[in-house]
Formats: sequence, C-alpha cells, structure tokens
Amino acid sequence: MTRVEQAAKGLISDEVKYVADKEGVTPEHIRCGVADGSIVISRNKNHDVAPLALGGGTTIKINANIGTSSSKACVEDEIEKMKIAVEYGANAIMDLSTAGDTEKIREMILAQCAVNVGTVPLYEMALKARQQQKSVLDMGADELFEIIETHCRQGIDFLTLHCGVTQQSVRRFKEVDRLAGAASRGGTIMMEWIDKNRQENPLYEHYDRLLELLAEYDVAVSLGDGFRPGAIHDATDRVQIDELVILGELVKRARQKHVGVFVEGPGHVPLNQVVANMQIQKRLCENAPFYVLGPLVTDISPGYDHISAAIGGALAAMSGADFLCYVTPAEHLRLPTVDDVREGVVASRIAAHAADIARGNQKALAWDDELSRAKMNLDWDRMISLCIDPRKAREYRDSLPANQEELCSMCGEFCAIKRTREIKR
Amino acid sequence: MTRVEQAAKGLISDEVKYVADKEGVTPEHIRCGVADGSIVISRNKNHDVAPLALGGGTTIKINANIGTSSSKACVEDEIEKMKIAVEYGANAIMDLSTAGDTEKIREMILAQCAVNVGTVPLYEMALKARQQQKSVLDMGADELFEIIETHCRQGIDFLTLHCGVTQQSVRRFKEVDRLAGAASRGGTIMMEWIDKNRQENPLYEHYDRLLELLAEYDVAVSLGDGFRPGAIHDATDRVQIDELVILGELVKRARQKHVGVFVEGPGHVPLNQVVANMQIQKRLCENAPFYVLGPLVTDISPGYDHISAAIGGALAAMSGADFLCYVTPAEHLRLPTVDDVREGVVASRIAAHAADIARGNQKALAWDDELSRAKMNLDWDRMISLCIDPRKAREYRDSLPANQEELCSMCGEFCAIKRTREIKR
Repeated sequence: MTRVEQAAKGLISDEVKYVADKEGVTPEHIRCGVADGSIVISRNKNHDVAPLALGGGTTIKINANIGTSSSKACVEDEIEKMKIAVEYGANAIMDLSTAGDTEKIREMILAQCAVNVGTVPLYEMALKARQQQKSVLDMGADELFEIIETHCRQGIDFLTLHCGVTQQSVRRFKEVDRLAGAASRGGTIMMEWIDKNRQENPLYEHYDRLLELLAEYDVAVSLGDGFRPGAIHDATDRVQIDELVILGELVKRARQKHVGVFVEGPGHVPLNQVVANMQIQKRLCENAPFYVLGPLVTDISPGYDHISAAIGGALAAMSGADFLCYVTPAEHLRLPTVDDVREGVVASRIAAHAADIARGNQKALAWDDELSRAKMNLDWDRMISLCIDPRKAREYRDSLPANQEELCSMCGEFCAIKRTREIKR
Repeated sequence: MTRVEQAAKGLISDEVKYVADKEGVTPEHIRCGVADGSIVISRNKNHDVAPLALGGGTTIKINANIGTSSSKACVEDEIEKMKIAVEYGANAIMDLSTAGDTEKIREMILAQCAVNVGTVPLYEMALKARQQQKSVLDMGADELFEIIETHCRQGIDFLTLHCGVTQQSVRRFKEVDRLAGAASRGGTIMMEWIDKNRQENPLYEHYDRLLELLAEYDVAVSLGDGFRPGAIHDATDRVQIDELVILGELVKRARQKHVGVFVEGPGHVPLNQVVANMQIQKRLCENAPFYVLGPLVTDISPGYDHISAAIGGALAAMSGADFLCYVTPAEHLRLPTVDDVREGVVASRIAAHAADIARGNQKALAWDDELSRAKMNLDWDRMISLCIDPRKAREYRDSLPANQEELCSMCGEFCAIKRTREIKR
C-alpha cells in the first residue's frame, strides 16, 4: 500500500504523525490532505530520510538544485553545495547532474543528504545516449523506464517527469509565436524526441506503467512543465495553459493509482499574472501542490535572478504555491558556486517565510516577533542569533561598530528605538 | 507661481514637456496630473538638475539614502555612494547626514549629483542642538524653520517633514500596544519634542507658514510617516492609519497652496497587507504619489533586507506606490558601504521594473523582450549588455565558461534554447 492508499483507508501512519507534529496541525488534517491529494508526503521507501510535506496549508517548502555539468563535474563541489543548501534551510535537494558517473553521484548524495532528494530522469537518458555515442532521439521507452526504475531503487524521493508534453502540444508549440521557446531542459528533450520520432511521449502513452512503478517505491511524481516560458513575453500563453490542462488529467490518474503527485509551474511570469497562474493551477489540478520555479518577474536580472525569483515566489506562495524552487544569482550565466547556492537558498527562504506570515502561520509570525522584541530591547546578540543568516548579520554588525555599544553605526544616537523607549517611559 | 499653480492655469512649461517626453505621454497628461496633484514634479528653483516626476502612471522611481553618521563621517565615502547609486539607476538621493559639517556636505552633494536631492531637516535640528550642547527638546520652532529655509536656499529638491505627528497622535501612540514602537528617526524626535514640551508640533501648527516657505523655492514636501511600524506585528494599526488620515488633510492643504506633496509610507508590512495599504493611502490622500520605505515583508532578514524590501516594494508598486526608497543589505546592522548601496539600488530597481511591467509599461516590457531575443539568439554579448548590471553578469559568465562558446556552464549541451531552435527549425 502506498501512503495515499493508507490515508484513504483512514490509517494514520507514524509518518503522518511526524508531519502533523512538525506542522503544528492534527494528524487527521494531514491524513485527509494526503487522501484527497491536496497534501503530498514525499519519501522513497528505500530512503532513510525525514518526509517532505507539501501543500494543503502546510508551511511553504523550498528546493535547491545542485549537480554537475559538462563544464564542471566535481562531485565534492556538489556535495558541498548540497550541505550548504541544507544548512541554510533547503527542505529538498534536486540532483540535476548531467556529467560524470551520475549513478555514483546520486548514491553519494542520498547517503549524505538530510532531506528529500529529487531528480529528472530525462537528463540521464540524454547523458546515457551521449556515453553510448548516439543521439538521445534514438533512445527508446524501455531505456527511459529502466533509468526511472534505477532512480527509484536507489532511493530518490520524487521525480520530475515531463508526462504532459504530447504530440498534439508539440504541434501547437511549433505554431505559436513565442519569443524564447521553452525553458525546460527535460521538456525540450522530450519535444525533440516526439518530433523526430513521430511517436507519442512514452511517459504519456505508458503513464499507467509509470504510476505502477512509482507506487512500488512510493515515489512522488512532480509533473514537469515542459513548455515553461523562458521570457515574460511568453507567459501564460496557450501552450502553457494547454499543458496545465493535460497535467490536470494526469493528476487525477495518479490519484486513482494512489501515487503522490504535484505539479511544476512557471517560469518567467509578470507580477500581474502571478496570482492568476496560481488560481488556475489549483483549479485545473484539483488542489494538487504547486511547485514553482521562481517565478522570475523580469528577464533583465541575470546576476540577481534570486531577487527576481524571491519577488515572484513570495507572491506565488501567498497565492497558492506550496513549494518554491530556488534560483541563484548564477541563473542564466553559469553553474552556481557554493556562495551562489547560499544566496539562492536564503532569498528563497525569505520569500517562503514572508508568504507563511501572509497566510497566517503563527509559528512564522512568532519568529518575527521574537526578533523584533530583541531589537526593541537593543539585545544585539539575541537579535542577531534570530536573523535568517546569523553569520552574515554578525559580520555586518562587527565590521563597523557604533560609538556606543547598544547602538548601530547607521543611526547612532539618532536611534528611533532608544527614543521610542524614552517616550513610552 | 509654483509649477502646480502654472499647471492649474493651463500652462505647459518646458519642464512638463521634458517629463512628458521622458515618460512617453502627452504634455497635457502631465500638466493635468500636476494640476490635480496625482503627479508631483520635484525640483528646487535653485537646483540645476533634471526634474523628478512621481505618480499618476509615470514610471516607478527609486531613491537611495546616503549620509554620514557619528560612527563614520567621511564625506568622500558618501559622495562615492551617491555616484554609485546614480550610476546604477537611482532617480533621487536623500542625504541623511547626521555628523560633520552637514551644510558643506549638502553643498558638495548638490554640486555633484545628477538627480534630485532630498533631506530630513529634523535630523539637522538634532545635530545643531548637540553642537550647541543642548537637547533637541530645547530647540524652538524658529530654529527649525531656519534650518528648513537653509535647505531650501541651498537647492534641496524635496524635504521629508513629519507634519502629521501631533499631540493627539502621540497620546494614542503611548497607549497602543506596539512591539517595536516607531521606526522613524525624524518622527520619534518630533514625538519626544511634543511630549516633553507639551506643545503642538510646529510643523503642524504652522503648516501654512511652512507651505509658503516651500512655495517660494518650489520645493516639494514629502509628508513623513512618523509612526512608521518597525515590526510586522505593528503593521497597519490604529496609530499608523490615524496618521495617514491626518496626512490626507495635509495633502489637501498643500494643494490649496500649490505646493507639490507626496506621502511617505510603511515600513514593515506583511505581504497580505501590502495591497490594502496602497489602496487606503491612495483613497485617504486623494491620489497623492506614495513613497514607500521598502516595505519589508519580514523582520528576520537583516543582512538581506534588500531582498525583503524588493518583495514588498514590487507588490506595493504594482498596487499603487510610485516611489520606492531602497533598502540595503546593511539595514538594521550598520551604515551601508558602497557595495551595500549598489546592491540596494539594483534590488530596488528590479522591484520597480517588475512593477512597471505589471502596470503595462511598454518601454519596460520592450527591455525584457530585447534581452530575451538576444538570449534566444545565443548572442551573449548583447544579452549581457542588456542585463541590469552588465558588469556583474559579465563577471559571472566569464568566471566559469562552458566547453562550447555559445553555451553556458549551467546547462552545457543540455541547452533548452538550442533544442528549441532545433524543434522550431
């Protein structure tokens, strides 16, 4: 039995109790959410790790992508990025490695990672093709399913699979007038495969087979948005929404097979379309958890895309998104460094936390109140210990001390807090 | 005649034509906005600088605060910060110096600054008191007016004045249950002055005298929000809204005297209250331009408050704010460095630009489209030149080149753009 099936049968597992305790809600609330699909708990049977709970009013979670590329395939670097990401609060890691011994890399990451690990098996298909000196377009359905099974067997907790890219949608994509095509790496691999082979997407055609495989390991599927717009110009167009319609159907079918399912979303979205995107997803996908990539609210911010994504992510999460994929300052420019990863995670956490507050999460608000109380008491040590990145806050404060210890070098004796205390006295 | 009076009489000045040309609208549109107060054009008669247009559907502008403090009073540093801020796109500078020869500092800044300069005369009153070895509470109305006149005579373009802090509102403030008092330095000076002297705020009591003085130099007043909440817990409370009610009255009176007037706003505001704050301000202040400080959407982000402010600022600007005061990563911790200023300005510009796009500004959108077109063409030089900070983007790209020149080290041959072009071919 998968956990969805257990929940549907009214069983409250230890996992459900654990999540309920972490989230500060009743186990029955979590069980109901898992049963109706509005909450997904993700953890592979073969992975000894804390479960990840997404959706249904649980706190907003964030994911950090790591992984090798053909330009830099240093496993130790990626492990370090993984550790920094988790240290700074990432709730999940996706290993997007596309170079080196990826099976071994996954094994190392799974062994050392304290949180859920996700992957995109289509990348591995492309990599395997290259290693066999053939085109990814010549790979077959069985080879893809074999890769997916390997990931499941290894203990990967959730898989991003571009099941909604179909022959029909590729036709539509070719006709539509987009500025920047599609931004999804996995999605474009599948599109080209469909286009050149003139065959249906095996993940769509054999979706039931896929679900049975996932159920065996109780692995959740993250339905990839293959047609993700890569420019503000292209946001919320027919191609994007058409895929979402298909993803809605696939959500329903996954639920029928008791497989945990959540849905990937944009991408580049202008700020005025963010709320509508969340609402339409929640409607079309019947409240499945929504996993957004940013969204970036402008195209002009490479070097600062973590800020652009924090803006979009905060508004998205306030309006329905449940899981934010971080974006680092390196987005669009290079493979991220360890510092980029840290900056990306912190930016994403600020967005998630701001949205948790906006959604009325009392624990989130209590954190702010505690820090503000310390600030009001001019208790710098306590205040700094409560900052999202105490190390950076300490470094800043110590780098330019004020003349009087209880003040700061910005306002000095013009301190509004000190004066407020005088007035209130 | 002030420019408001000119506009009310139907005159279209060169200044109005200049602004209309910059904004891509008709001079008549700008003239009407200036006449009804929804647009403020700011420039001191004595300052040879480009006018600053705020409100009424003009593009969103950003301000960068600089200035000495008692911990660090190096004029050259502040001039450098001013230059960096303008280079990276600040539309106005506020000189908040609170140490050293502030008159001389203003003179130097005014002589070298290519954009509008604003100040907070109350800081100078506190500083002058200290120099005279007395308390700011012993300063009188005439001394304050003398300082204001000096700023006007020197050429300062707009003044933040806390006219809405009154005896009645100080009483309410003392009763209310706030976690973090008030965050406004000028506001708390005025509160303490009112409280200890048991007299009305001279800026409120002699508001007409103030307006006549400002009209003489055609200086705009930025009505300070003295009771600005300094914590999420305190946002949108009675004290804050009560002050806004008073500021609405003061807007009306300024308009009657043909003085340009805009209104300062919060502060710390949870994301779910940002839109309401914009709407209530626009209503109570009859569409006066709104100048928001952030707003910060959480208290826990010192070290990263520029990101918290970008989130709040973007949503605020989409929903009605016209002028964003930047926040740097140093906020709450230290006087900002030159690097902090650059990061603050860029974050604020991203927020303003995202909101310009959301408001349907075609020029803003065209910038994104141009960058995305270059990206789609894998024309890296062009793409980087269009980034908000081309220097940083170039540095990132060059630090880890991909194996193939037209690709990046993130995706390498898994490039979605390259694949999209294959499919579209």
